Amino acid sequence: MRDPVGSRTGAVVEAIRRRLAVPGLAAGERLPSIRGLAASLGVSPSTVVEAYDRLVAEGAIRARPGAGFYASRPAAALALADAATPADRAIDPLWVSRQSLDAAPGMLKPGCGWLPAGWMPQAALRRALRDLARAEDPLLADYGEARGSPALRRLLSRRAADDGIDAGPDHVLLTASGTQALDLVCRALLRPGDTVLLDDPGYFNFQALMRAHRVTVVGVPHTPAGPDPARFAEILAAHQPRLYVANAAIHNPTGATLSPQVAHRVLTAAAAHDLTVVEDDIFADLEPEPSPRLAALDGLERVIRIGSFSKTLSASVRCGYVVARPDRIAALTDLQVATGFGGPSPVAAQLVHGILGDGSYRRHIDALRRRLSRARREVASRLADLGIVPWLVPRGGFSLWCRLPEGRDAAEVARAALAEGVVLAPGAVFSPSRSSTDFMRFNVAQMGEPRIYDVLGRALRH
Amino acid sequence: MRDPVGSRTGAVVEAIRRRLAVPGLAAGERLPSIRGLAASLGVSPSTVVEAYDRLVAEGAIRARPGAGFYASRPAAALALADAATPADRAIDPLWVSRQSLDAAPGMLKPGCGWLPAGWMPQAALRRALRDLARAEDPLLADYGEARGSPALRRLLSRRAADDGIDAGPDHVLLTASGTQALDLVCRALLRPGDTVLLDDPGYFNFQALMRAHRVTVVGVPHTPAGPDPARFAEILAAHQPRLYVANAAIHNPTGATLSPQVAHRVLTAAAAHDLTVVEDDIFADLEPEPSPRLAALDGLERVIRIGSFSKTLSASVRCGYVVARPDRIAALTDLQVATGFGGPSPVAAQLVHGILGDGSYRRHIDALRRRLSRARREVASRLADLGIVPWLVPRGGFSLWCRLPEGRDAAEVARAALAEGVVLAPGAVFSPSRSSTDFMRFNVAQMGEPRIYDVLGRALRH
Repeated sequence: MRDPVGSRTGAVVEAIRRRLAVPGLAAGERLPSIRGLAASLGVSPSTVVEAYDRLVAEGAIRARPGAGFYASRPAAALALADAATPADRAIDPLWVSRQSLDAAPGMLKPGCGWLPAGWMPQAALRRALRDLARAEDPLLADYGEARGSPALRRLLSRRAADDGIDAGPDHVLLTASGTQALDLVCRALLRPGDTVLLDDPGYFNFQALMRAHRVTVVGVPHTPAGPDPARFAEILAAHQPRLYVANAAIHNPTGATLSPQVAHRVLTAAAAHDLTVVEDDIFADLEPEPSPRLAALDGLERVIRIGSFSKTLSASVRCGYVVARPDRIAALTDLQVATGFGGPSPVAAQLVHGILGDGSYRRHIDALRRRLSRARREVASRLADLGIVPWLVPRGGFSLWCRLPEGRDAAEVARAALAEGVVLAPGAVFSPSRSSTDFMRFNVAQMGEPRIYDVLGRALRH
Repeated sequence: MRDPVGSRTGAVVEAIRRRLAVPGLAAGERLPSIRGLAASLGVSPSTVVEAYDRLVAEGAIRARPGAGFYASRPAAALALADAATPADRAIDPLWVSRQSLDAAPGMLKPGCGWLPAGWMPQAALRRALRDLARAEDPLLADYGEARGSPALRRLLSRRAADDGIDAGPDHVLLTASGTQALDLVCRALLRPGDTVLLDDPGYFNFQALMRAHRVTVVGVPHTPAGPDPARFAEILAAHQPRLYVANAAIHNPTGATLSPQVAHRVLTAAAAHDLTVVEDDIFADLEPEPSPRLAALDGLERVIRIGSFSKTLSASVRCGYVVARPDRIAALTDLQVATGFGGPSPVAAQLVHGILGDGSYRRHIDALRRRLSRARREVASRLADLGIVPWLVPRGGFSLWCRLPEGRDAAEVARAALAEGVVLAPGAVFSPSRSSTDFMRFNVAQMGEPRIYDVLGRALRH
């Protein structure tokens, strides 16, 4: 083990380096205050002072007495990732995505965030493709409406009504993906330097996305009932954030479910501070019965719902959506035309509509939930043999958020497993404060292969 | 006719209002200097002074003596379009897109920027969909590689080689659309307040996109041989722009073709000022034989090629691409994962690959060029009967950039035609300086319906 104080400073140095590597950061740009950065990273001000001192010594930043710290050179305009470190070594928020998307054939991916292709509704997808081959000419060749397929928007409006959200088709905008839906909302609402709240731990790509928007992320500790409501209110008062991004139904990575009390307290605090909330619905179909929805409690006044079908239908057919007030939808539609000339592919929307509108999707989801329930039990039991224990038992979904035995460093375990052809998802990448270092997210649907447990056992002893 | 001086001030007032409506513009943000804005809009400094005075009187901006002009209130964070004007009245860079994409059934669209669905390779699309219904499971359900389908990237690399551009598959990134490809490049290279050069006239959505990036646009007068090279060099020296966005092969809207001499002068000036150039290849397949390519002359050192298949294959199957140096591609890939979790749909890429890789695409393009050549002649002759004359005779493509008779105001003609169910593309929306007010872009492939000419005749007499 390294000196814990030293490694904490090292983590802060890395966090500032990442900030310096943000696309387009100019020389002379002011860095966050010592107090502000200490709060956002969850470390003491003296740790930040030490980190800034180290970077001043390196020449990466400059101190102006009495006026703070400044970037001293133009960072690589194009670098979103840590430029100095090869991609397979830097355990940053893009690490898991990069390793999972570009895994060589034969790699095993218990760290990835989606289901195996064989668990998806293949027969329905193939039927929808054959139907599409008989569609009318304009559907196959035209751009389609700026807000996306009216039929799919009507269907999403009915699904919102089932969740107690009163949203007509004019409340719905289709996008190219769930991530792109969030990106569009961020472009419309945020400007560089704003503060955004993310769950800690939370989905790592939200951090990568916020880095692309050059905003400051503050983590809210997550509990089994949702964000810690007392800390949430304190952080709102202290940081005046512009946006909070939450998962609906099944939290990523913990599998936690929002309780009605926490939902109410979150919305009350949000109203008091005029905070906008994005609720990501992407895992909602995987929960056995509906849990509280911020969008339903709020009535879409300050909550924006986003989602996609990549976790339950197909990640290859790219289609996401935003459900929000019509005034927001109108502005987001213009923004999507300007930045993507539309975005929702009519062909993709028709495929999704063809499958969702068919009774087979409901049967697929029912079977999927049962299969995942079995897989969660089986994988939890095999992980227990290795001393790996889930933080909680999720009601649904494919993630188990587990503590490693004896405080092992998950990043080291992930590096050792990668060398043996297994992609894992180490805890720190989920954590805006870079804590959760002894946690790991496991995807139970990707863990049928016994070799995974052998590799994991060796990596833990590494 | 209105007082020309008054209307010029009015245009500048509108330009500043649009700037104030940029997403997220904060109160207290400094507006451009009088001299800078005058140069970028191509008007005299006294016109800008008059416009600023008018906005100060309205309370929209504040003057700080000796320190310039400032936004005096937070503009609507979400408004990209002119918030004060109903969408169907504001002739802004989003007008044509909005009217064309969301045209009611039965509307005629000589102003739109794409081919009718019946002109697209429908049989090949249907065959590719049926083939896809028999593809392997992962292609239909997985995210696919972060850079997009390797098969389509290899094919695009071979197409680049045909154009004299040495680019391996690691030089290629697939995106969700051509516009999204440009957006991604802008996000990586630009920061708010940077200056970008666009052709004047040029494709209107480039202006809308730059507005979303909060950069200052300077127009380069376009000639029948490309951008005016002398003005291009002067503007580079005066404004130090970060980026120039050009069309390859067939300029939108004029149909002009870049000459070898102009291409060389543009690249020489770009090198002297360290300017990056984006060359949009979207219309390239429509030209009868290849014209000079900036990317080929430059060897992808400072030129980035983008493109898509929306004009020649399908706009419903969304798939675009970037061809650039591998270091740029690596950074853009990270950025696309962060902001869209991938972006290129494997299903869409497979459809495009299935059609491009098949001899039928070449036959489709040959037939399309002949059909467009006939349509250009026929439409030019019918427009001549109305006194509407093309600025030049294009070598290919579907656009005719025409001057209206007697200096009629194209925006007024477009409003009158819209009332009769015909969407036109008035010249000013193509012009960063809001000139070209007596020009109109006509899409010859959308003008088979005789009623269009009746409506046009009435609108001209309006």
